[in-house]
Parts: sequence; C-alpha cells; structure tokens
Amino acid sequence: MAAIGAMPEIGGFRQKSRRSFVTLILTVLTSSQSILIVWSKRAGKYEYSVTTANFLVEALKCALSLVALLRIWRKDGVTDDNRLSTTWDEVKVYPIPAALYLVKNLLQAGLYCFLYYIFAYVDAPGYQILKNLNIISTGILYQIILKRKLTEIQWAAFILLCAGCTTAQLNPSSDHVLQAPLQGWVMAIVMALLSGFAGVYTEAIIKKRPSRNINVQNFWLYVFGMIFNAFAIMTQDFDAVMNDGFFHGYSLITVLMILNHALSGIAVSMVMKYADNIVKVYSTSVAMLLTAVVSVFLFGFHLSLAFFLGSTVVSVAIYLHSTSKARR
Amino acid sequence: MAAIGAMPEIGGFRQKSRRSFVTLILTVLTSSQSILIVWSKRAGKYEYSVTTANFLVEALKCALSLVALLRIWRKDGVTDDNRLSTTWDEVKVYPIPAALYLVKNLLQAGLYCFLYYIFAYVDAPGYQILKNLNIISTGILYQIILKRKLTEIQWAAFILLCAGCTTAQLNPSSDHVLQAPLQGWVMAIVMALLSGFAGVYTEAIIKKRPSRNINVQNFWLYVFGMIFNAFAIMTQDFDAVMNDGFFHGYSLITVLMILNHALSGIAVSMVMKYADNIVKVYSTSVAMLLTAVVSVFLFGFHLSLAFFLGSTVVSVAIYLHSTSKARR
Repeated sequence: MAAIGAMPEIGGFRQKSRRSFVTLILTVLTSSQSILIVWSKRAGKYEYSVTTANFLVEALKCALSLVALLRIWRKDGVTDDNRLSTTWDEVKVYPIPAALYLVKNLLQAGLYCFLYYIFAYVDAPGYQILKNLNIISTGILYQIILKRKLTEIQWAAFILLCAGCTTAQLNPSSDHVLQAPLQGWVMAIVMALLSGFAGVYTEAIIKKRPSRNINVQNFWLYVFGMIFNAFAIMTQDFDAVMNDGFFHGYSLITVLMILNHALSGIAVSMVMKYADNIVKVYSTSVAMLLTAVVSVFLFGFHLSLAFFLGSTVVSVAIYLHSTSKARR
Repeated sequence: MAAIGAMPEIGGFRQKSRRSFVTLILTVLTSSQSILIVWSKRAGKYEYSVTTANFLVEALKCALSLVALLRIWRKDGVTDDNRLSTTWDEVKVYPIPAALYLVKNLLQAGLYCFLYYIFAYVDAPGYQILKNLNIISTGILYQIILKRKLTEIQWAAFILLCAGCTTAQLNPSSDHVLQAPLQGWVMAIVMALLSGFAGVYTEAIIKKRPSRNINVQNFWLYVFGMIFNAFAIMTQDFDAVMNDGFFHGYSLITVLMILNHALSGIAVSMVMKYADNIVKVYSTSVAMLLTAVVSVFLFGFHLSLAFFLGSTVVSVAIYLHSTSKARR
C-alpha cells in the first residue's frame, strides 16, 4: 500500500476539468438514483429479487467497460496499460472490494430490519441518519490506508459535512436514534467502517497503477462483482428465480434503476481514479440535498427549516474544503 | 468613527488573560441569567413591573462602577483617565446606546406579542430562532462601523455559529418560522440590526479612548440608562408604581435576576473594552448551549439530536474563529 503516491500532474488543467466532470456526473446520477427509489416506492412494493438486479448491474458495468475498451483498442492499439490480460499479482486484490460490498449489503439489510422491527420505525429515518457515520469513517480510513493527510481545516469541513447532512435529514422522529441500544450503534459503526474501507480500498487498487486504463481496472472489479452476486442469487433467491424466472417482477422503473446503478458505479470508479474518496463523499452529500430540492417539484415534498440549516452548513463545509489546500 | 484603531498591545499576555477572564465571566453570567428566567417561569408569572427592575439594574451598575472607581482613586489617585468629570465632546454619544436599547426592547416586546398572538406560538420558539439573526447583523455592522475586517474563514465561522445556534434550538414547531409573513421577518431584521448597532456603537464609544478607565465610561453609559428607564417607568408603569409601590411583586428570584443582569451588563462592557462584539456573540452563543446542558440536571430537560448537531457546528465555528488570525 506504501506504493500509492500522488498522481503525476500531467496536463493539470485537463485533469482538473476531467475530475470536475466525473464529480458532476456522479452527483447527478446519485441524485436521480434516490429519485428513482422514491418513485418506485410510490409505484408500489419491490416485486423483483434484489439479488438478480444487483447481478445485472455488475454485468452491465462489465459490458460497458468492454465497449469502452474496444473503442480505445481501435483508436490507440493494444498497449501494456490497456490490455485486458492481467497477472495474478495485479488481480489478486480485486475480489476484496466486491466481498466487502456484499458483506456490507447483508449487514445493511440486517441493520435496516433491526431498526425497523425492534423500534417500529416508519421508513427507518434513524437508519438514514446513522448512515452519515460513513462520512467520518471514510475520512479516518482515507488517512490511515491511503496515507494522505487531511489538513485541520479539511477535517473541520468533514465534521461539518457529517453534521450538516444529518441536520438536513432531521425529522420529528429523529430523536429516537439517541435511544438506540448499544447493538444498533455497534452495527451502524461496523457498517460505516466496512463501507468506508471498501471505498478507500478500491481507491488504493485503482491508484496503485496510475497509468493502467480505468476500463481494464473496472472490468476486473466488476467480474468479481458478478461472481459474488451470482453467489448471492444462489444462496438467497435460488428457488424464487427457478420458479418465477430471473426477470420476474421487472418493470420500467426496475430497468431504469439498474441502468442508473450501473452508470453511477462507473462514475464512482472514475471519481476514485481521477479524484478521491473525499470528493466522492462530498458528491454524494450534495446529491442528497439536490434530491430533496428536486423532490419538492416532483413529489410536492416540503423543505424544513432543518434542511435549510443543514444545507448552509454543508455549503460552508464545501467552501472550507475547496479553499484549504490539501497537504499531500 | 475613523479614529478607532487597534488597541496598543501593551502587556500582550496580561491583556489576553484579562480578555479570556471577562469572556468566561460573561458566558457564565449569561447562562445563569437564562437559568434564572426558566426558574422564575416555573415559580409563576412575573408579578413585578419590568421597567422598575430595568431601572434598578442600571442604578446598580452605576453604583458598582462608582465603588470600583473609589478603590482606584484611593490606590492610584485621580488622573485624567480615571476622573469622573467629563466634557460635552466625550459624553454626547453616551445616550445613543441607551436610547437604542430602549427602542430595541420596545420592538422586541412588540415582535414577541406579534408572534405570540398572530401565530399562537407557545413560548414563541420562532422568536428565539429569529433572534439568531443578531449574529449576522453584528458581523456586518462590526465590519462597517468599526472598520475591522473579518477574514473569509471568520465569516464562514460566523455563518456556522448562526446556523449551529439555530439548529441547537430546533423543535417540532420551528418550521412555522418559514411560514412567517413578511412583516414578521422585517420586524426581526430591524430588531437584529438595532441590537447589532447598539452593541457595535457601544464598542466604538468605549474603544474611542483606550486609556480612559472603563468604570468612568460605564458610569456615564449607565447614568443615561437610568434616565431612559426612568422615562419608561413614567410612560408605561406610572399608575402601577403609584398604586402598588415600586417594589410590588419582588421576590428572591427578582432580586437575583437584577443582580445577575447588572453583573452581566458590566461584563459585556468589559468584553467590549478588552475584546470585541464578535467575542461577545460567541460568548452568548456558548452560554445558550451551556444553559441547555445545565437545564438537563436542574430541570430534567432532554437534549435533542438537533442540539448535539448544533453544538458540534458551534464548536467547529469556535475552532475556525480561533485558529484564523484576524486581519486588522
């Protein structure tokens, strides 16, 4: 892991605008993802099996990476950096993020059920609030694993981002979170650490060889994603798939959600290649606020005073992060 | 006003520790003030006339300033800086803060009634939330009138202070504030500007002659405070005082509140002499959080998640303000 240094600053402007572009795309995709989820909830309950959808997302990402590679090979020819074939030494770490994400998804479902059934939370808002612990865990693991130092001002900004996002999501039942028992907190913290670790580890893998084409790196990441999700189908939904078919319960929204998840996943990889996990966290936080604003127009939601206060704090956090130079 | 420059840094350490001391005293006094108010509300309704209490506060501050001056005269003798006699040129601006505070108090009572009767707010939490506009108005007027520049980071910290204090005070009925009509907002903004102007103007008067003894400056400020409050008694409570007596309805809590207000008033003057309005705003904000924590033990209040989030944001604001050097 010690081999991961700063990316060489070749073509500083091009790199900077590419970074801004992928961050913008990620923000828009994440925001529309949440809107699709609200839409699908309004349309009715999930009828399809989540594991098959997850598998299709990985397969689609794999296919899109291959299409991108075909275009690159036609244009530039096959080089050491963009060839698909790989060594054991390069590929051996690729299953780890896929495995971490699977464990995290299982735990996430577990925590959701835990909060939902034990506390009879409607829509589990406590769960949404606990998810903001991800922000802090990502910051800590980013420093430890990637050995990049956040300045004190950047840490202050990160704490504000977490507090601001949580404030923006406050609702009358939020205070229940404070009464959550120890197990709930432990599960939430473990989940946050897993999620943060998966993200930071993926960045470490992708940044380890900066000249390596991102589409090849994505291809291998997604191949293992497919394998792990195939395993999840077999252990969890084998009977349902056998009896009702793979595509049972799929609708237009399901297809749009799969498409969106696939594109978001690729955008996340791009952000990790050209920016970092810190930028990713800011991007998804802004997406959360954007979703709320768009929902006002789409679904007639109301914005609370807490939302305005949280948005103000998040805006100041972004300002502080952007004006403070990273000591790397 | 252009004559107001930075205080000469004589005995930097002594000055710094004096500044910290008066700030700490102000924080503790402001916090205990709020606790006395909660206590007096629990004990029953106000029975005494508020104008007589305000007059006694000014008289007590006047007397305390004189006692302090007597001790100084006995120790150091009478000098140009600590003599009580004054010129028209020095004293002509002293009635202005007293007049501003009186207008502000009248408007404040007006806004409170407005919010209370028009919106039927219980305890007018909207009023508490609108009061946080003071923070922003103080920052703006501090820059304009005292011609001292806050750095960008200090402004970011100030916006966070305002957002954090408001977040800490959020409660289920806070969202009503967003539906307040234009008149309510205009009144709140005018009040915030008046309050900010009175504070900044007092600082300007006190800092105009840095070597002048603070007790003499206070004495003259409070003399005009007494005059204006005597005027308020005569216009508002003349009949009540004539019929029931000056001290009708006074209790132990009333006496404690008058004592506390007098000491807080002197502490505010000291903070303005040795620090500034920005420090005063931070001090009263911390006092607000302190009051809530102490109320948990004293009155069995519950702290909400919003309180923790707001306190976190306020803490980061204090950190940012203290690490960022003022460009003066």
